[in-house]
Amino acid sequence: MFRRLVALLSLCAALFVPAVNAQTDPLPSWNDGPTKARIVAFVQAVTTPGGKDFVAPADRIAVFDNDGTLWSEQPMYFQLAFAIDRAKAMVAKNPELAKQPAMRAAAAGDMKALLATGEKGLAELLAVTHTGITTDEFAQIVRDWVKTAQHPTAKRPYTQLAFVPMRELLDYLRANGFSTWIVSGGGVEFLRVMTEELYGVPPQQVVGSSAQTKYEVRNGKPVIVRLPKVDFVNDKAGKPVGINKFIGKRPIAAFGNSDGDFEMLQWTTSAPGARLGVIVHHDDAAREFAYDRKSHIGQLVRGLDEGPALGWTIVSMKDDWKSVWAAPR
Amino acid sequence: MFRRLVALLSLCAALFVPAVNAQTDPLPSWNDGPTKARIVAFVQAVTTPGGKDFVAPADRIAVFDNDGTLWSEQPMYFQLAFAIDRAKAMVAKNPELAKQPAMRAAAAGDMKALLATGEKGLAELLAVTHTGITTDEFAQIVRDWVKTAQHPTAKRPYTQLAFVPMRELLDYLRANGFSTWIVSGGGVEFLRVMTEELYGVPPQQVVGSSAQTKYEVRNGKPVIVRLPKVDFVNDKAGKPVGINKFIGKRPIAAFGNSDGDFEMLQWTTSAPGARLGVIVHHDDAAREFAYDRKSHIGQLVRGLDEGPALGWTIVSMKDDWKSVWAAPR
Repeated sequence: MFRRLVALLSLCAALFVPAVNAQTDPLPSWNDGPTKARIVAFVQAVTTPGGKDFVAPADRIAVFDNDGTLWSEQPMYFQLAFAIDRAKAMVAKNPELAKQPAMRAAAAGDMKALLATGEKGLAELLAVTHTGITTDEFAQIVRDWVKTAQHPTAKRPYTQLAFVPMRELLDYLRANGFSTWIVSGGGVEFLRVMTEELYGVPPQQVVGSSAQTKYEVRNGKPVIVRLPKVDFVNDKAGKPVGINKFIGKRPIAAFGNSDGDFEMLQWTTSAPGARLGVIVHHDDAAREFAYDRKSHIGQLVRGLDEGPALGWTIVSMKDDWKSVWAAPR
Repeated sequence: MFRRLVALLSLCAALFVPAVNAQTDPLPSWNDGPTKARIVAFVQAVTTPGGKDFVAPADRIAVFDNDGTLWSEQPMYFQLAFAIDRAKAMVAKNPELAKQPAMRAAAAGDMKALLATGEKGLAELLAVTHTGITTDEFAQIVRDWVKTAQHPTAKRPYTQLAFVPMRELLDYLRANGFSTWIVSGGGVEFLRVMTEELYGVPPQQVVGSSAQTKYEVRNGKPVIVRLPKVDFVNDKAGKPVGINKFIGKRPIAAFGNSDGDFEMLQWTTSAPGARLGVIVHHDDAAREFAYDRKSHIGQLVRGLDEGPALGWTIVSMKDDWKSVWAAPR
C-alpha cells in the first residue's frame, strides 16, 4: 500500500510540475538567440535539483522595474499623464486650484510651462492630484482613469502598452517557482490598482514610492488618508532599500531599463551564486521608442557602459522581441 | 484516456486538498467551546464556495500581532532583552559606550535605572544596539542571540515561548488558503530572522517597526546600512497604515492581545462581509502570565471594554487553550 501511494504521489507531482522541455517554448515572443538562451539557462540552472546553482523556491525572488521595463514610459511616465488628467478635472471643478503654477500649466496641457515649474512644481502637482483623499477614493480615481485614458501617440489605453515578451517572462518565472515583484519608482498605490490584471502580480508584491498616510475614524468609519508628504522614494539607491524593507530577501534576478535601476541590478547580481541582471534597451523606434543616453525619461548610460562587464544581459527590443505590445483591442 | 486522466486528476486533487472534516480536529490544542467554534465557523464561512460569505483565496489575508499574541511578552518584550544582552556585549568590548546612561544601565542589568532614562534613553539604547551596522551583520547578531539567550523565568530559549495553539491556528488558516502576516510593533529585521521557523511566515510577510537604511558600495561590495533614525513605528494607528503600506489589501481576520492592536482589529472588522477579530487575553498566571488593564506591557483596556460589542472574540488562555508553550526541549 505504501509503495503504491508513493508511486501515485510521484505521478501526481509529475502531472502538476510545470513542464519545461524542448518541445514547448516558454517565451514564444522572444526571438531565439543569445539573450533568450541566457534567460532560459539561468532559470534551468537555479531550478535543477542537485545542480550547483540550485535555489530553493522560497528564495527565487525576481524583481522588475515597471516604467520602461514592463510597459512603455514615453512620451512621459503614464502616472504623470494621470496627474495631468486629474489636474484638468480638478481645476474644472474648482478654478481656484489654477492659482498654483504647476496646476495651471497641467490643467492647460502646457507641458513646457509645467516643466518650467521644476521639481518644486512637479511635487506640488503630485501633492494636489494624489493626496488629501482616502486610499479607497484614490484607488477608485485611478481605476476610472485607467478605463478611459488614451496614450497620446499609440491611441489606445495605457494598459495595452504592457510588453508582451515581459508578461511571458513573468509567467515563465512563476511557472518555475519564482515569486515576481514590481519594484518601481512610480507610486505604489497607483500601481497596485492594475498590476494583478496587467502582470499577474498581486498588490502585496508591489514596491514603489509612497506618500505618508494617516489612519482616522470619520463618523465611526475608519479610513486611511493620503497626506501631502513624501514617505519613500523608490528609485536609484532607494530600490535596494525598498527591496530590503518590503521583501527582506536579496533577489536572484532583476530586470530594469534605466540608470534608475542600476543599484537594484548591482545589489541583485553582486551576491554569490547564479544571478541574472537584465536591461531592456529601447532601440526600436519603429515599433515603440528609441532612447537611451540622452533621454530625460529612462536615461541609460551606466547600464550600457558597465552592465556587460558585470555580466548583465542587454535586451534589444528590436532584435530580441517578436512583438512589443499586444494587438490593439 | 481522457476520462482516465480526469479521474486521476480528481484523485490527485483530493489527495492534495487539505481535509477539514468532523473527524480531524484542525485545532487540537484548543478546548472545544464557543471561542474555537467561532473561529472554525468563520473559516468555514469564508471558504465555502457559493456561500454568502465566500472570500477568494487571494483576499484571505490574516494579520497577527507578535508580542503577546504569537509568543510571550513578559517580563519584558523579548527584543528589549536582546538589546540589553547586546548592550552588555558592546560595553564589555568598548567601555566608552557606558558613558550613555541607558547603555550603562542596560550593561549593568539595572532595569530600574534603564527605565528611569525614559523614552529618550530607550531610543538611545535601541539606536546603539540596533544600528550602525549592515543588515547582514544585524541579522547574524540576532541569529546568534536566538541560539543562546534564555528567558529569565521560563529558563529556556525565547523561541520556545511561542504559543502552540496560535501556531496551529496559523497552519489551519494557511491550509484553508489564507496568507498569514505578522504585523508587529517589534523591529521588522529582528523578527524576520526567526518567523519562518517559528510560525511558517516568510520574511516578506512580516510588517514591523523599522530603522531607516542606506545603500552603500564599500570596497566594491554593496551593503545596506542601518541608520540611527526611526523609519516607521508599526503600533496602534500605525498598524493599519503598515498593513496598507506593505500588503495593500484590507485583511479579513486580525489577531492581537493589547490596545496596541485596537486599530488593526478595528480596520479589519469594520469592513463589510464576514470578518474575524480576536484578542488573546492573558489570564493564565499558572501556565504563563496574567495581566491586562494595569500592565505596562501589553495593556488591554479598550479591547476588553469595546471588543465584545464590536463582535470580537476574546480568547481566555486559561479556559480556551489545552497548552500554552510546547514542552521544553
